[in-house]
Amino acid sequence: MKTLIVVSHPEINNSQTEEFLQQAAKPMEDVTWHHVESLEKIDVDAEHKLLKQADRIIFQFPLYWYSAPAGLKHWIDTVMGRNFVYGDEQYNLEDKEFGLVVTTGMPLKDFQVGGTEGMSLDQIMTPYRAFAKRAKMIIMPIFTVAQFWYQTEPQQMKLLIDYQRYINQKYPDSLNNRQDWFEHELTKFVSRLSDEDERNANLVLETFREQIEDLDQLNDTLKMIKKGEDDNLE
Amino acid sequence: MKTLIVVSHPEINNSQTEEFLQQAAKPMEDVTWHHVESLEKIDVDAEHKLLKQADRIIFQFPLYWYSAPAGLKHWIDTVMGRNFVYGDEQYNLEDKEFGLVVTTGMPLKDFQVGGTEGMSLDQIMTPYRAFAKRAKMIIMPIFTVAQFWYQTEPQQMKLLIDYQRYINQKYPDSLNNRQDWFEHELTKFVSRLSDEDERNANLVLETFREQIEDLDQLNDTLKMIKKGEDDNLE
Repeated sequence: MKTLIVVSHPEINNSQTEEFLQQAAKPMEDVTWHHVESLEKIDVDAEHKLLKQADRIIFQFPLYWYSAPAGLKHWIDTVMGRNFVYGDEQYNLEDKEFGLVVTTGMPLKDFQVGGTEGMSLDQIMTPYRAFAKRAKMIIMPIFTVAQFWYQTEPQQMKLLIDYQRYINQKYPDSLNNRQDWFEHELTKFVSRLSDEDERNANLVLETFREQIEDLDQLNDTLKMIKKGEDDNLE
Repeated sequence: MKTLIVVSHPEINNSQTEEFLQQAAKPMEDVTWHHVESLEKIDVDAEHKLLKQADRIIFQFPLYWYSAPAGLKHWIDTVMGRNFVYGDEQYNLEDKEFGLVVTTGMPLKDFQVGGTEGMSLDQIMTPYRAFAKRAKMIIMPIFTVAQFWYQTEPQQMKLLIDYQRYINQKYPDSLNNRQDWFEHELTKFVSRLSDEDERNANLVLETFREQIEDLDQLNDTLKMIKKGEDDNLE
């Protein structure tokens, strides 16, 4: 699976959150980190090529007045010509998966009826969903990073894994697909240790397992996997 | 009432719709037509001054991928600092009225469940409403101009009047407020003719009345006014 992460942040070098997410994405295969504000000039053909080769396209940005920074809109307005997206019955993005990674300094609980914002992020993100719908894309749930700097180290570790899963775990986020993703990651991890002896590998694997067992949700998931259940989680 | 129309359109000189709306706004008093893409540089202090003196602030733009063109977002991101909008318990836009004039090439019927777009303009405009809510502004209904170039001349005449009413008729759009608006406009019209004799004035007034009576909705409104009803229309 090839994933294109279209990142918009006008001051990306001052953003701890973006730095963290970029580090999380870096070791992953077939992932393109594409920061639009760093583009000197938008080459529409090159952008179309990038989009066409991707199986999953993610827009990632901090919430600036309830939508992406102007840089992403400029990129969208420039790159997403009508003819490219749906003109002449040509749907160049059809059946690609569409994700949104939204970072915000507000707590998530604000985004609900009765909360400070009074509406959900799902509602606020309607324009992007409308776009993806028009393009006949497959719409993934929003991935939210709220108040990153308040997160404890275990929370950040969980965030890292969840973000990596959002980038290339098979859609939808079912228990089976999670299990496959973890198996694949563990196998990759062990294969990198193939030169060393098995005992060392197992030790490291044990450490890896211990680490993720600290994290509640993953813990639950692993327990369910152990029990051999294969119902979807959602 | 002072109205600030913040217009965003990257190719405004090629837009018949914007030309039409600008002509409609031109003769009106206390209306500032503020085209953001024409600003060479955004002077934040000057923009704040403009915003502060306005009683009604309208964002006006064509729908580009379900939101304003990038130029408006750039203006918003630049001008709407947190401290200006809601920081330190200072709400500089509090109790000002907030309007949206949205022009689109799609027919209005597309914007509903079951329509081509599958969602309403109200839903799509959520980010702007969230902004206005955060700023403690009074949110007016959206004013939509759909498929301007398909409109007949009487439809365009009605659009012109409706747009002028949206710019400075007292909120909300009740029958009383409409009646006041029309009375004020007619009086202004007659006063401009004060040098000429009454007969001429009445002739022109008659013509004015005949023109607006062609328009169905206005016709209904006038009939209701004649009947002396004063229930709110909505």
